Amino acid sequence: MKERIVLASGSPRRRQLLEWAEVDFEVIVSDAPETYPSGLPVGLVPIHVARNKALAVKKQLSPDRIVLAADTVVVLDGDIIGKPVDREDAIGILSRLAGHQHEVVTGVVLSQGQKEIAFAESTEVYFHELTREQIENYVDKYRPYDKAGAYAIQEWIGVVGIRGIEGDFYNVMGLPVSRVVQELEKM
Amino acid sequence: MKERIVLASGSPRRRQLLEWAEVDFEVIVSDAPETYPSGLPVGLVPIHVARNKALAVKKQLSPDRIVLAADTVVVLDGDIIGKPVDREDAIGILSRLAGHQHEVVTGVVLSQGQKEIAFAESTEVYFHELTREQIENYVDKYRPYDKAGAYAIQEWIGVVGIRGIEGDFYNVMGLPVSRVVQELEKM
Repeated sequence: MKERIVLASGSPRRRQLLEWAEVDFEVIVSDAPETYPSGLPVGLVPIHVARNKALAVKKQLSPDRIVLAADTVVVLDGDIIGKPVDREDAIGILSRLAGHQHEVVTGVVLSQGQKEIAFAESTEVYFHELTREQIENYVDKYRPYDKAGAYAIQEWIGVVGIRGIEGDFYNVMGLPVSRVVQELEKM
Repeated sequence: MKERIVLASGSPRRRQLLEWAEVDFEVIVSDAPETYPSGLPVGLVPIHVARNKALAVKKQLSPDRIVLAADTVVVLDGDIIGKPVDREDAIGILSRLAGHQHEVVTGVVLSQGQKEIAFAESTEVYFHELTREQIENYVDKYRPYDKAGAYAIQEWIGVVGIRGIEGDFYNVMGLPVSRVVQELEKM
């Protein structure tokens, strides 16, 4: 690639993953809303939100630049679990996740001129049972208010509380890097 | 736990995982040999090696201390793949792993006085196809000579080259932390 790609995300985790993957990039963050039409099928929601982030950044750039945007959601029993709105919500979300399996779905949009590659990558995550005390301690110490599903897999609750996963680990961190790199090569 | 546990491993990755898990520990490294009797079933090899590491450190301590030791191996088609002996060996190992599934098995021994908890945790790892050039670049840049299977999942080749896993991600990094914490609680 001659020009650096543009990452339309402020997430330090996504930045770190692209660095590990040795992708040359710069960050431009948009103020695109993370809303979506009601009734949109669950699997399409993160792609829809990622596309809005990509388009908001694309407007500011020359059309030949490659923009990469992503949005990650947690899906439990068919419901989308977003970022917690407050402490009680975070505790409630983690209480629902504990002892169960959920899905982490990241929607990715790669956009250049008229071309677009969009896909969603899904990883299954299996949580151990957690006590109310463990959940409260985690929420108060780590304050996971900016995280879909109210947790980060690389923090205490992910290290101690997750029994296993099925799929791409880095997808749970917010970006399915190996798939992104393959799609970038096609582009 | 009143007394800090003793980690019988010099691996910075294991140290980091225990820190993330908020386990209170100190490190004492032994010079236990990483050898095992020929004919030992593959699944028992990392437990055998971990036990030797634990016993070598235990000798230096009062018997009430809890010693934690671990050994990680890569298993491909029933063969144990250890650390590469040189550049050619590392390239050969990664060429065998590319495009295939392998197993990462970590043997863990927790030892206190006469008590011992030993187990092995296994995670399936699926590599994409890799070119000879990608493999050589990785080996020359990251020099994975201290790593079973000649790779680290958190380095370039793991981020870009691994399609997915099944099981505990942290086990691939060298320690199945969530299981370790559960067994420590029993002890």
